Amino acid sequence: MGLPGGFEFTGIACGIKPSGKLDLAVISSQTPCVAAGVYTQNIVRAASIEWNQQLTPTEGFKALVINSGNANACTGQRGIDDNQTIAAIAAKHLDADENQVLVLSTGVIGQHLPMQETTNGIAQAISEQGGSEDHFERATMAILTTDKGPKTVESVVSTKSGDIKIAGMAKGAGMIGPKMATMLAIIISDAKISSDSAQQILNRAVEQSFNRISVEGHTSTNDALVMICNGNSEVEVESDESLREFEKAVTENCIQLAKQIPADGEGASHLITIDIHGATNDQQADSVARTVAASALVKTAITGSDPNWGRIVSAAGYAGAEMDVSMTSLKLNGFLVFDNGQPVQFDEKQVSQALNDQFETLIELTIGSGPGSARHWTSDLTQEYVRFNSEYTT
Amino acid sequence: MGLPGGFEFTGIACGIKPSGKLDLAVISSQTPCVAAGVYTQNIVRAASIEWNQQLTPTEGFKALVINSGNANACTGQRGIDDNQTIAAIAAKHLDADENQVLVLSTGVIGQHLPMQETTNGIAQAISEQGGSEDHFERATMAILTTDKGPKTVESVVSTKSGDIKIAGMAKGAGMIGPKMATMLAIIISDAKISSDSAQQILNRAVEQSFNRISVEGHTSTNDALVMICNGNSEVEVESDESLREFEKAVTENCIQLAKQIPADGEGASHLITIDIHGATNDQQADSVARTVAASALVKTAITGSDPNWGRIVSAAGYAGAEMDVSMTSLKLNGFLVFDNGQPVQFDEKQVSQALNDQFETLIELTIGSGPGSARHWTSDLTQEYVRFNSEYTT
Repeated sequence: MGLPGGFEFTGIACGIKPSGKLDLAVISSQTPCVAAGVYTQNIVRAASIEWNQQLTPTEGFKALVINSGNANACTGQRGIDDNQTIAAIAAKHLDADENQVLVLSTGVIGQHLPMQETTNGIAQAISEQGGSEDHFERATMAILTTDKGPKTVESVVSTKSGDIKIAGMAKGAGMIGPKMATMLAIIISDAKISSDSAQQILNRAVEQSFNRISVEGHTSTNDALVMICNGNSEVEVESDESLREFEKAVTENCIQLAKQIPADGEGASHLITIDIHGATNDQQADSVARTVAASALVKTAITGSDPNWGRIVSAAGYAGAEMDVSMTSLKLNGFLVFDNGQPVQFDEKQVSQALNDQFETLIELTIGSGPGSARHWTSDLTQEYVRFNSEYTT
Repeated sequence: MGLPGGFEFTGIACGIKPSGKLDLAVISSQTPCVAAGVYTQNIVRAASIEWNQQLTPTEGFKALVINSGNANACTGQRGIDDNQTIAAIAAKHLDADENQVLVLSTGVIGQHLPMQETTNGIAQAISEQGGSEDHFERATMAILTTDKGPKTVESVVSTKSGDIKIAGMAKGAGMIGPKMATMLAIIISDAKISSDSAQQILNRAVEQSFNRISVEGHTSTNDALVMICNGNSEVEVESDESLREFEKAVTENCIQLAKQIPADGEGASHLITIDIHGATNDQQADSVARTVAASALVKTAITGSDPNWGRIVSAAGYAGAEMDVSMTSLKLNGFLVFDNGQPVQFDEKQVSQALNDQFETLIELTIGSGPGSARHWTSDLTQEYVRFNSEYTT
């Protein structure tokens, strides 16, 4: 499909990760361009988040520096200074201003960055940049922590005025794991768009995608989604129609990236899609979807391929949404197990087999006759998740 | 210490549990007396909960029938009819009215009760009742599901007018597990008190005790706390002073019972006490305590005796409460690990050892300089919990 032109990428190992794995990525634009961002709502937030929030949306973006292996969060004034140094060093090597450089960090909370390694790394990374798929791939790998592999997406939007390319990368396997993982996502495009439009599109896209996924529901100090558009396609996204087309494509790209996170959830053996229907409104449907997704009893039932529907119905019951039990029905992977408030006779072995055979589990829950609906994606909860997160890591 | 007089107890195996374990308890009063109740806030609720809610508070209580092994929830009209039959059969054998009989059920969701076994069991149980510690103990055992053993409390309140005895029993190891466990608690006393006062005392006591515990945070369809007072002590609880004294004792008994639930949480290897200080008000402190208690990453860190404090501070950050990170400090089992927004150098081995050596973990988190505080108890999250709840149970 090809990457949007006009961008350069790189990923190197500079020594932030003791393992020696790739830990520093740079994405830069040959010309100043548009960048928009959406960041964690956690009050405890990384230095990089504070930095980016002041700078986006912007039309003067030049580069994004991403380090993995250290979150630079809960690190006080020294962490803030270190973050600024990263932007300043990258700006120097790119002949830009530090305010044109965004920074993303992910990894250990509460430890200071090894600044000698990091600043040397930035110089090296910038000298090795390029626009090939190979360069892009190195960047997608350098942002990972506990992920099993890179999470990427590429697509082309065909508009009346021409084609626009979109590419994206994400990382994340736990919403947060201090000394481990947080969620980052970057969307790049050659669309020609104003920073305000880019920001509005991103705000809405995140609601349909990254705000609808969970692994264990622990909101990170470092979560960030950044979209960069350099106008290289010469296709202006300005008319209502082209804005709608571009937004639809960005949203779809965000959904495709977002789903890859719970699918790669720490220890996950199932990706669970939760569809709620019949709620009073979409907001209430969303509450129910989130509550079902957060239930350890629901997640462990899916882990065991157990059609233990009482756990799902009872989770919906404490979500704080209106619910008519006599109009509540539930399907698991298409099998009806609870029908208008009454237990249904079903072949438990057959349903269990269906849950076991498929990596993707579909929970369809109707809680009344209202127009509200919502979709959410989560991973199941396995012994492997607990083993992984209870190992002595400090 | 001795049980309150005037009550009779029994626990038998009537065949509701396929394992043949004790599954039916009856607690009755020789004379009509006061009963108050607090029930689950889940919209999806068991037939027994609807029944009791209409009847309490009451001054005409005669008996409480409790079955384990079947929750009689999500069972439609037939479940409602079965519940009424239980009350009617018990009433017949006790020469009472069915409206004088409360019912509690716990166990499998979505299956109908074996009514032949249950009604035969009620007749047998009532014929075997008695007021001894031995009879009491059989009742405490017959209400259990996945619990490792009975949870009880006994105490005496000395007032100016004489002594009042209080005894209690509880069950619960997961807040809910369809086909398994829910939380039930019963407080009995020989206090002479009005049903209104008993209800008010119970409402406040539950806020300080059972509403402050969690295992995995899944609210049951069957949770119930019932207090029965028969006046056998002839000590009237009526004056402000005696009401205060009695409430204090009831609250303390509820706390002692409540803590036994997360201590016996499914698979638990630690009982975690979370103390929040410095919040804007108690309600915000409570939100933070609940959010920390619900974090799988916090729970698994404690499982692994890992002083991974970033997980705790970051959980507080997304609780939705006001928080001043520069005034945030954290102690783990008495060791300072985060001090006014800055990481602290501490001996990780020593703190880990302290977490590992003690069954009880104390998290003390200050999030500002406000007057708000809250305490919450939870269990850690182990591979055993996941194994237990992901086993194929249907």
